[in-house]
Amino acid sequence: MSYTTKQEATPILFGAEVFIEPGQTTEEIDLWFRRLSEAGMLVTRIRLFETYMHQADGEWDYTLFDEAYKAADKYGIKVYGNLFPRTAFTDLGGLKFPKDAEHLASIANYIENVVCHFKEFKSCYGWVPVNEPGVGSFPKEQFATEKYKEWREAQKQTEYNSGGYDRFDFADERFHLYYNTWFLQWLTDEIHKHNPGSIIHVNNHAIFKNVAEYDFPSWRDFLTSLGGSAHASWHFDYFPRQKYALAVNANCEIIRSGAGDIPWFMTELQGGNNTYSGFLALCPTRYEIAQWLWTAIGSESRGAIFWCLNPRSSGIEAGEWAMLNYHNEPSDRFVATQEIINTVNSNHGFFEDAKEVESGINILYTRESLWIEKTLQMGGKSYEGRDEGGVMKSAIAYFEALSEAGVQANFKEISEFDFDKENFEGIGIILAHQISIPSKYWPLLTKFVEKGGRLIADGLTNYYDENAVATTRLGFPLRDVFGADVLEYKAIDDLQEIEVSDIALPAFQWTGILKPTTAKAVAGDNNEANATVNRYGKGFAWWIPTLTGLGSRVLNDYSRLNNFLQQALDYESLNPPFIFSQPQPGLMMKVLLNNSEHVTIIINKSETRCELSLIMKNTNLQPMVIFANCGGKAGGNHISIEAEETMVIKWI
Amino acid sequence: MSYTTKQEATPILFGAEVFIEPGQTTEEIDLWFRRLSEAGMLVTRIRLFETYMHQADGEWDYTLFDEAYKAADKYGIKVYGNLFPRTAFTDLGGLKFPKDAEHLASIANYIENVVCHFKEFKSCYGWVPVNEPGVGSFPKEQFATEKYKEWREAQKQTEYNSGGYDRFDFADERFHLYYNTWFLQWLTDEIHKHNPGSIIHVNNHAIFKNVAEYDFPSWRDFLTSLGGSAHASWHFDYFPRQKYALAVNANCEIIRSGAGDIPWFMTELQGGNNTYSGFLALCPTRYEIAQWLWTAIGSESRGAIFWCLNPRSSGIEAGEWAMLNYHNEPSDRFVATQEIINTVNSNHGFFEDAKEVESGINILYTRESLWIEKTLQMGGKSYEGRDEGGVMKSAIAYFEALSEAGVQANFKEISEFDFDKENFEGIGIILAHQISIPSKYWPLLTKFVEKGGRLIADGLTNYYDENAVATTRLGFPLRDVFGADVLEYKAIDDLQEIEVSDIALPAFQWTGILKPTTAKAVAGDNNEANATVNRYGKGFAWWIPTLTGLGSRVLNDYSRLNNFLQQALDYESLNPPFIFSQPQPGLMMKVLLNNSEHVTIIINKSETRCELSLIMKNTNLQPMVIFANCGGKAGGNHISIEAEETMVIKWI
Amino acid sequence: MSYTTKQEATPILFGAEVFIEPGQTTEEIDLWFRRLSEAGMLVTRIRLFETYMHQADGEWDYTLFDEAYKAADKYGIKVYGNLFPRTAFTDLGGLKFPKDAEHLASIANYIENVVCHFKEFKSCYGWVPVNEPGVGSFPKEQFATEKYKEWREAQKQTEYNSGGYDRFDFADERFHLYYNTWFLQWLTDEIHKHNPGSIIHVNNHAIFKNVAEYDFPSWRDFLTSLGGSAHASWHFDYFPRQKYALAVNANCEIIRSGAGDIPWFMTELQGGNNTYSGFLALCPTRYEIAQWLWTAIGSESRGAIFWCLNPRSSGIEAGEWAMLNYHNEPSDRFVATQEIINTVNSNHGFFEDAKEVESGINILYTRESLWIEKTLQMGGKSYEGRDEGGVMKSAIAYFEALSEAGVQANFKEISEFDFDKENFEGIGIILAHQISIPSKYWPLLTKFVEKGGRLIADGLTNYYDENAVATTRLGFPLRDVFGADVLEYKAIDDLQEIEVSDIALPAFQWTGILKPTTAKAVAGDNNEANATVNRYGKGFAWWIPTLTGLGSRVLNDYSRLNNFLQQALDYESLNPPFIFSQPQPGLMMKVLLNNSEHVTIIINKSETRCELSLIMKNTNLQPMVIFANCGGKAGGNHISIEAEETMVIKWI
Repeated sequence: MSYTTKQEATPILFGAEVFIEPGQTTEEIDLWFRRLSEAGMLVTRIRLFETYMHQADGEWDYTLFDEAYKAADKYGIKVYGNLFPRTAFTDLGGLKFPKDAEHLASIANYIENVVCHFKEFKSCYGWVPVNEPGVGSFPKEQFATEKYKEWREAQKQTEYNSGGYDRFDFADERFHLYYNTWFLQWLTDEIHKHNPGSIIHVNNHAIFKNVAEYDFPSWRDFLTSLGGSAHASWHFDYFPRQKYALAVNANCEIIRSGAGDIPWFMTELQGGNNTYSGFLALCPTRYEIAQWLWTAIGSESRGAIFWCLNPRSSGIEAGEWAMLNYHNEPSDRFVATQEIINTVNSNHGFFEDAKEVESGINILYTRESLWIEKTLQMGGKSYEGRDEGGVMKSAIAYFEALSEAGVQANFKEISEFDFDKENFEGIGIILAHQISIPSKYWPLLTKFVEKGGRLIADGLTNYYDENAVATTRLGFPLRDVFGADVLEYKAIDDLQEIEVSDIALPAFQWTGILKPTTAKAVAGDNNEANATVNRYGKGFAWWIPTLTGLGSRVLNDYSRLNNFLQQALDYESLNPPFIFSQPQPGLMMKVLLNNSEHVTIIINKSETRCELSLIMKNTNLQPMVIFANCGGKAGGNHISIEAEETMVIKWI
Repeated sequence: MSYTTKQEATPILFGAEVFIEPGQTTEEIDLWFRRLSEAGMLVTRIRLFETYMHQADGEWDYTLFDEAYKAADKYGIKVYGNLFPRTAFTDLGGLKFPKDAEHLASIANYIENVVCHFKEFKSCYGWVPVNEPGVGSFPKEQFATEKYKEWREAQKQTEYNSGGYDRFDFADERFHLYYNTWFLQWLTDEIHKHNPGSIIHVNNHAIFKNVAEYDFPSWRDFLTSLGGSAHASWHFDYFPRQKYALAVNANCEIIRSGAGDIPWFMTELQGGNNTYSGFLALCPTRYEIAQWLWTAIGSESRGAIFWCLNPRSSGIEAGEWAMLNYHNEPSDRFVATQEIINTVNSNHGFFEDAKEVESGINILYTRESLWIEKTLQMGGKSYEGRDEGGVMKSAIAYFEALSEAGVQANFKEISEFDFDKENFEGIGIILAHQISIPSKYWPLLTKFVEKGGRLIADGLTNYYDENAVATTRLGFPLRDVFGADVLEYKAIDDLQEIEVSDIALPAFQWTGILKPTTAKAVAGDNNEANATVNRYGKGFAWWIPTLTGLGSRVLNDYSRLNNFLQQALDYESLNPPFIFSQPQPGLMMKVLLNNSEHVTIIINKSETRCELSLIMKNTNLQPMVIFANCGGKAGGNHISIEAEETMVIKWI
Repeated sequence: MSYTTKQEATPILFGAEVFIEPGQTTEEIDLWFRRLSEAGMLVTRIRLFETYMHQADGEWDYTLFDEAYKAADKYGIKVYGNLFPRTAFTDLGGLKFPKDAEHLASIANYIENVVCHFKEFKSCYGWVPVNEPGVGSFPKEQFATEKYKEWREAQKQTEYNSGGYDRFDFADERFHLYYNTWFLQWLTDEIHKHNPGSIIHVNNHAIFKNVAEYDFPSWRDFLTSLGGSAHASWHFDYFPRQKYALAVNANCEIIRSGAGDIPWFMTELQGGNNTYSGFLALCPTRYEIAQWLWTAIGSESRGAIFWCLNPRSSGIEAGEWAMLNYHNEPSDRFVATQEIINTVNSNHGFFEDAKEVESGINILYTRESLWIEKTLQMGGKSYEGRDEGGVMKSAIAYFEALSEAGVQANFKEISEFDFDKENFEGIGIILAHQISIPSKYWPLLTKFVEKGGRLIADGLTNYYDENAVATTRLGFPLRDVFGADVLEYKAIDDLQEIEVSDIALPAFQWTGILKPTTAKAVAGDNNEANATVNRYGKGFAWWIPTLTGLGSRVLNDYSRLNNFLQQALDYESLNPPFIFSQPQPGLMMKVLLNNSEHVTIIINKSETRCELSLIMKNTNLQPMVIFANCGGKAGGNHISIEAEETMVIKWI
């Protein structure tokens, strides 16, 4: 196989993972691939268990997995081979890192055997070198320790020294970032030794917690496409069930931003029920399946693979997660997926090259904020604002708010944002309680505003530099752009209110006292301001030194935050193609563009039917409902959508 | 001493443990035995602490314990010597397993010395080789590890291989089962070397959690009688205080079933107050003492020993648990016990040979369900239905429900049930969320129904085989008997309702979709049934694939479950001697039979006086109240019983 | 420097700690000392980090800290040098104990260098040899283990053997007590080698939990003054925020009692905000600052040092805790402190030699009660009365109650109480759930009452001797003084009521049944008393065997307990100079005396303005308000005080 571009190598494809294990029969395996084929699911992923191929005598027996590739050949299904070197029966996720040099060699040997064998099948589409990289904690295997020493020695002294203050160096975290990349690159190289130029895909999981372990931009060179595992029952504990569609959305946007100029697609979406596995016990409804899948499509995912088609029979997930029922017949979730595939296929021309409409709004998080927040946990009383998660939930809060306004924001690690433009008019950055802004971004953020950008800083943003040194004794590095210094932060016990430009926002966890220089107080007065806005160059910088985003999230009421955002970001002036005429609690909208054609995907997670209007740049457009799973209707700019419904509208 | 039968060796006897420790005086010890004697308490148990006999120079000084045996001789009290090899001062429960070969030899040496010495006393009645065997976790001492290797090698390959699927083998759990039996047998053999044919008794504790460690049937050969420790403050955390009488009842039934054809008696019942010991701090009321003791008697316990008569003075339980007060005078609990002893003595002819009336209803649990449930715990959100305890609490729920109906059910490990009968008409089996049914029981359960039995399966019963492999890819091994296959289980977030034969049962944790073949849908329809009943051979099999038992328990409302059980088990048609005319929330009844004479024990744990009627097979019988501790009255089939009261009625 | 007396060496001084670390500039350091000087803060403490002086090549570079001492010289500020041998960057509290002999030598070397160097500065005022001794758990370093062996061998057999019962020996706890003293003495000796006779001060923290690790009386010989760290955000988790002033008060009284005849002063009071440090996130209000500081002054503290003046920039507390804002200008808390300093300075003659007025009431705790309570924790259900903390919270409850009555009680470890007097009339001892009274105090307590003292025993007081042996089999050692024995304790599930002398007190956790001999039943009757009072010699002993103090605390209602205390202690008959005419929920009062002059400090922590009257011994006195931070007024014996206000009144 060879493709001209990574994009071309990654057409929109849907599927579900076929779980292959000993005990299964040839007939069953054939049936599963037939089921895929019947549903238009043309891609799958298979775990290539070394344990089930590499025999005690050292010989390899590929028979079982050959059955699967043969069936895939027969039904025209593309197979991602998921490398799965020997691991314990109870190991759900599989290999993360090599234990030692011998282990690394054994992995290389496994790769050689497996890749050389399976690449010969027509259905062999590409490789997933490791399932769900990322471990949630610093790798401590012997191999990692040696690699750490090597890395440590190669580190050059950074120029920035936090003004000479003593400091954390976060070497563990930085190494972990490096090490993940190193290992993925190594795996890719090993695969390419035996199957040059083959497709490489990786799926990241538990993204809201693990994201600070990944350096996505550095993966773009060797990955064909980036992916994700987004399972409600394992990964969404920052969200209640009513917000899972939104969680999928945020998850998608994080991966989309990580992918940058390479394609991405959703490698694992929960397809079925949990009994004992999962941190939650959950069976997705067919409505949720539609919400999640359409959200992925609306986020430029090149399709999706559900976990999984058939339930494994053994081990911790026995009988769980599947889209086929125990008679190997389609579940309601499977049927729901099929309908969506049909819709996409019927509009293939549009979806194949559609792009998300850019709103210009960027919610940025920094890895260092997550590292520092984790490092500084002291135990004691739990506060949502300073427990682990406060940083990420603050960013999510703004994403939720804008979502209810019908505005789709980018959700980016700060390194993924393009600071190189000459003009940032119409572009906004939200730093929601990003406690650490690394020093190299201070001039970039300043320039961003100078060149017309709109900046909002919430909470304790920029409290620390990248070494957890307080910026207040480092000369207030964002003083110019904010036009103010902070004099004090004060912890508060309960939610309070803060009037910002006549909008009563919640104040949460801490409030701040600002001393404006060039800024204007928008809460309090100029001697003791509680929030400020500064006109700087061609842009504006807002500083609200309280966790108003997270406070809104705690209250589950984004109405006032949206009032504020509308004013601060002035996004209506940008004349977006579609936006809700007013924020809709519980609703979200994705907008895709292909040439001049638009598709809007609207999901109603409120508890009742919703009648809403859109503000449209081009008022001549007429809606054509191409998908609606509860009978939703559209006429002119008016939409009527049932609770739990997903509506997809093409505008013509 | 020699007895013709184990039954004869175990007459009904009451008592309280005399706690002997250095510091006590001869006079005190004498007084305690006098107190026993005065109350008609003719049995006691004594911890024979090696620490307090075996001196630093290797010599043995039995003086302290001789005082106790002498006093027992003097007052005619039978003494169970509880072996207590050297252990730490802070070790509340004592030896569970040997550490290594040297330790085992030292235990043998201890046994030789202690048994040879104390067997000479007239009052020496028998031996408790180990206090409360069972540790709640896999034994990891060196000795166990060696034994494990030996055992492992001796295991023959089982024929059953879960259809070739990879699987857990639960070798640890199976070894633990073996090892407990091995060690008890070894201890018994050591005792019998020096005191051949002597009485051996063992008390199991924390039964609702530890029961899967015990293979009771294999103990019947070497034990004279089986026993239990049932302490509310340590062992009943699955129950609120209002249900402790019921917990004692379930505990008794588990032990009674374990004992099978050998006698059992309650070795430890909580006699007094807790300060710092116990997972709860609790002082039993005199009403509770009566409830617990009568419940034991009603479950064929050959009496009971309270823990304890006098409080130990030292260590973690100092000043606690006692039935005598600090002046060595009777507490109200002691007096209450004495009244019961008097009642039993006055009706000795009846109680000595009384048997529980058999209802034919059997709540079965499987060890494998408990093992698998424990193994599959993943952490995450707590759900009562899938946390550890879901299996046992589901079984308990049915016991509670039937209890309120005045029906006494058997509570058995599946291996304790007699599948060998030719006719199972009038016999019911309830499998309440028993997630694993080992393969060898599949044909037995099928035969059971075929031969007239009534089977109820609740929750995820038979989801797994004994190796935690899902049965859905093993050909649905109970397909014939249920007349249906399961297509899907679906986790549900909240309690729902499910109409089963027009009874609105609670649905909890998961619901199922069944596909009937020969069965009839009793909830949903034949395409997508949520519960089924199947006429198979001469019997019926009900399948309710949701945790309706546990759901009823969560709601603390068994009224609808009892409606269902009445219909499904049709127990009224069996014409039981006594049954409540309608279920009585908070009440329970035990029915004993000796020849044609019946005694009913009724306990009112509701908050108010209760007026109720009994349905009696023989309507000519007249009640004679032989015990009532709040003035309860009976006339004809009508009972008036106060809150907290225990009434014992002989029917003549 | 040389002082005639320790008192003279410890004039009243106020200040805030200047935190010195690399990165700071000479100008900043100078500014901070100038800020101290401007505010009349004439003392500070500085952490003398070895890490920042002792270079990799073994050389010492004192430059950074010299800047601080030079600035102190310049502005006339006295500096306590806080020894801070090398430790990890993340170690917030610093060295507690040496790891091994080598470490000890390195500490000695550090002391030699640092003391010899800094003693030359005029501003060098004295030394704090270790910050916040006490670790909350048994020291396990190699050095401690060796020291333990040595100590163990030197222990002579105590005569008291708990009547021959087996027992705990609490050797770990007793060693810990010894070891803390040993190490402080060693540090002091090392300092005095190089700076003979210099001032030595130590600050104990987390006092309500760590106090049983300290043998304060044995420190009096080598300390110049005793101190404390009382940080709400780290140390007050037994209290809600509304009670922090009271917590400071109790903390002060414990330290005051520990200090005995040497002076004490408050070494650390929280001065500012928390972000990530602290078990709570908190920023003190200016009212709280006043409450805490005046409470310390009212408890004879020789001033106070706030933690801290300037925020450290690096590490876990970066940007936190400070009294100056990020512009190095006074915060509102700093200004509040300055006002108090001015008031004290204006009344210097009074405050310099003022003493707390002695009420004669002593709340005694015993170390052994805390040790035993901790040792006997079994896990299981949480009960406030038997969890760790039940003992200390019971003592605190009485302190709170008396506080609301306007009565200031002593809060003493029992060894700190003077049992040597000939007459105890007008003196009361409260033993609130002090579960262990060591045997040597039995005759002393008996004598205390015999000679006119009033004794109140609450809860399970004297349940154990010092070895955790129950006293009930040790002959009821306080039988004579109580005139009663306890027959039983009974755990109770919920709060109940107990009528003691017609006052309906709460009964909590356990109730008791007492058997009076000479005592009179004041609850229940003489056969089964639930509380008794005994006239013994010239005094009275009350025994209330339920946790009525803690029960009152749980209810947050001390009205009935105060009724009882008024009767039992009869403190009004002592004619105190000032007392509230009736208890004032949420208020507290400190009364100082200097010659015949009195100052009362009243704090209103209720939620509203309070109008109250004082009962005064000398009704001719007139109030002169010398401090009131919310406009409080006094006229005659009438006070009007706002919520959160602190009023200081001189009576003339």
